[in-house]
Amino acid sequence: MRYALDELKRFAAELLAAAGLDVDKAVIVSRYLVQADAMGHTTHGLAQLPDYLEEILSGAMRTRGEPKVISDRGMAIVWDGERLPGVWLTAKAVELAADRASMHGLCALAIRRSHHIGCLASFLPIATDHGLLALIACSDPSAAMVAPFGGRAAVFTPDPIAVGIPTDRDPILIDMSSSITTAAMSARLRREGRRFPGLWAIDAEGRSTDDPNALVADPPGSLLGTGGPDHGHKGYGMALMVEALTQGLAGHGRADGESGWGASVFVQVFDPELFAGGAAFERQTGFIADLCEASPPIDPTRPVRLPGAAALARLREAESQGLEPHRGIMEDLVVFARRHSVAAPRSI
Amino acid sequence: MRYALDELKRFAAELLAAAGLDVDKAVIVSRYLVQADAMGHTTHGLAQLPDYLEEILSGAMRTRGEPKVISDRGMAIVWDGERLPGVWLTAKAVELAADRASMHGLCALAIRRSHHIGCLASFLPIATDHGLLALIACSDPSAAMVAPFGGRAAVFTPDPIAVGIPTDRDPILIDMSSSITTAAMSARLRREGRRFPGLWAIDAEGRSTDDPNALVADPPGSLLGTGGPDHGHKGYGMALMVEALTQGLAGHGRADGESGWGASVFVQVFDPELFAGGAAFERQTGFIADLCEASPPIDPTRPVRLPGAAALARLREAESQGLEPHRGIMEDLVVFARRHSVAAPRSI
Repeated sequence: MRYALDELKRFAAELLAAAGLDVDKAVIVSRYLVQADAMGHTTHGLAQLPDYLEEILSGAMRTRGEPKVISDRGMAIVWDGERLPGVWLTAKAVELAADRASMHGLCALAIRRSHHIGCLASFLPIATDHGLLALIACSDPSAAMVAPFGGRAAVFTPDPIAVGIPTDRDPILIDMSSSITTAAMSARLRREGRRFPGLWAIDAEGRSTDDPNALVADPPGSLLGTGGPDHGHKGYGMALMVEALTQGLAGHGRADGESGWGASVFVQVFDPELFAGGAAFERQTGFIADLCEASPPIDPTRPVRLPGAAALARLREAESQGLEPHRGIMEDLVVFARRHSVAAPRSI
Repeated sequence: MRYALDELKRFAAELLAAAGLDVDKAVIVSRYLVQADAMGHTTHGLAQLPDYLEEILSGAMRTRGEPKVISDRGMAIVWDGERLPGVWLTAKAVELAADRASMHGLCALAIRRSHHIGCLASFLPIATDHGLLALIACSDPSAAMVAPFGGRAAVFTPDPIAVGIPTDRDPILIDMSSSITTAAMSARLRREGRRFPGLWAIDAEGRSTDDPNALVADPPGSLLGTGGPDHGHKGYGMALMVEALTQGLAGHGRADGESGWGASVFVQVFDPELFAGGAAFERQTGFIADLCEASPPIDPTRPVRLPGAAALARLREAESQGLEPHRGIMEDLVVFARRHSVAAPRSI
């Protein structure tokens, strides 16, 4: 069953609005969830919607109002998200940081107490479409499932960082967690009875394993940082950087004993035009992109690709051919649709 | 043979000045090279000095003058380093970015055509000593020894990124290359007839190897990005980010066919005081540091350490007990000292 993207957005927005979310926020949240699915980030798109709906119904996700401005120095901004929908907050933050960067060259914005922000890569085009370089990072201070290098007890969340790099053609869209894999992917593999493709986790004793059930055992194991047992000090460094940018600059995080599902967020946008010029920037990034694509592949059937190239190809296909959501997602949503008398989406 | 740090700095500065470098620049370059050795980053300290001296004598490293300001928008700055000593340029850039960040909350500075910048971690305390968060990244557009994920031909340099995070006690000092290991470490292992501790490289056919000679074979192999064959898309993403920040924002790099040994540099400093407050920042980072150190170790003899903790302990020991340079370094330098009639350092 394939659906037009607009029809999926309509359906998701109506579900969110029926649960009680402001219509303007419901439209934005739906746009970026469907965009994530269309880009192939299927664990962080509509797959999140049932949980968002539950959080709205339980009162854990706030449904109306604006973030509170804790500090605004022009290029350095802090918001209290007050548990408003993170997808809406992050889209809004990237837009504001892009506006400010176009005036001053760069702008950074940290958000405390956001709700879950979905797929970081889905927000990057807001900046790269205008020739702007964007960084987005997030952490969830209420959760811990990634161990520091050499440790057995988890401290961090997967702490992703996304980078959108404009070039003289398609942008490069990077979205990588500090851990080898994500919480959502681990949950999906558990549900589907599958294993990690490598020894990406440890059990509570610190033994390496490819079993995603290790994370929910009693006592629980942990995900490993990027680099794994061999050079996991890299993922450890990335996680510490992300936690400092998100919770440190936002002035709120693990030290506050946060308990609700959510995020601390860091957004930064640079306008290359106000550094050495947009054309000079894209000349370098386009040239580097060419070099990567020209590197002969180790496996002749798998040419070297730029981060985001597959996602953009999928997005274009979904825009013209529609989208088939990952298995199980529509079935979960139809239960909510019935409960709230929302019309199921028409397939193509 | 151990030497007082001041005596090593005196010796290195006299060598650089004798080769023709401005005395003020010689003093700064020596300070940070010796600081790198004292922190245990022995491939990026005095081990670089013989090459720096050769570059001065050949005219490849400029010896006097100031960087040219390409653009200065207050918080967004670009310099042309004009092949001045990179260690001096980077120290100066971190100082300027720190001053500007204290006024505006953040400041980013990109440098094109710097000479080699040494050890990134050695500059971090310039910011962290004042409660400032610092990022430093560099790439060398004249060289390529790291393959993109899945490719056989190198595109990148190791493209390190360093992050200095103030806490309510010692700062966290992260310094990590986007590749699993560095060019300087590979050269040292080759010289010492040793191997990588893991399959950290590939030969020209793309076969994984632990042999550092693969990099200088004909045709040459490449270093692997962080994550290696298992999840090397992470190191690939880091390298693309670093190349965009350094060469893209500086508007000069691989597209210009740069041939001399050198660096494109990115420096960014944040003042947490102008976000949610310095105390609020350090409360979070200190709490996270505590959590890491409290994570029970997988190997009971190797407690979890914070990045930079070992370096700071070594630095304190070197400050009180003196330093024994890595083998071979003093022997190489004594040759220059004789040629330029510089007094050899007195050992303790």
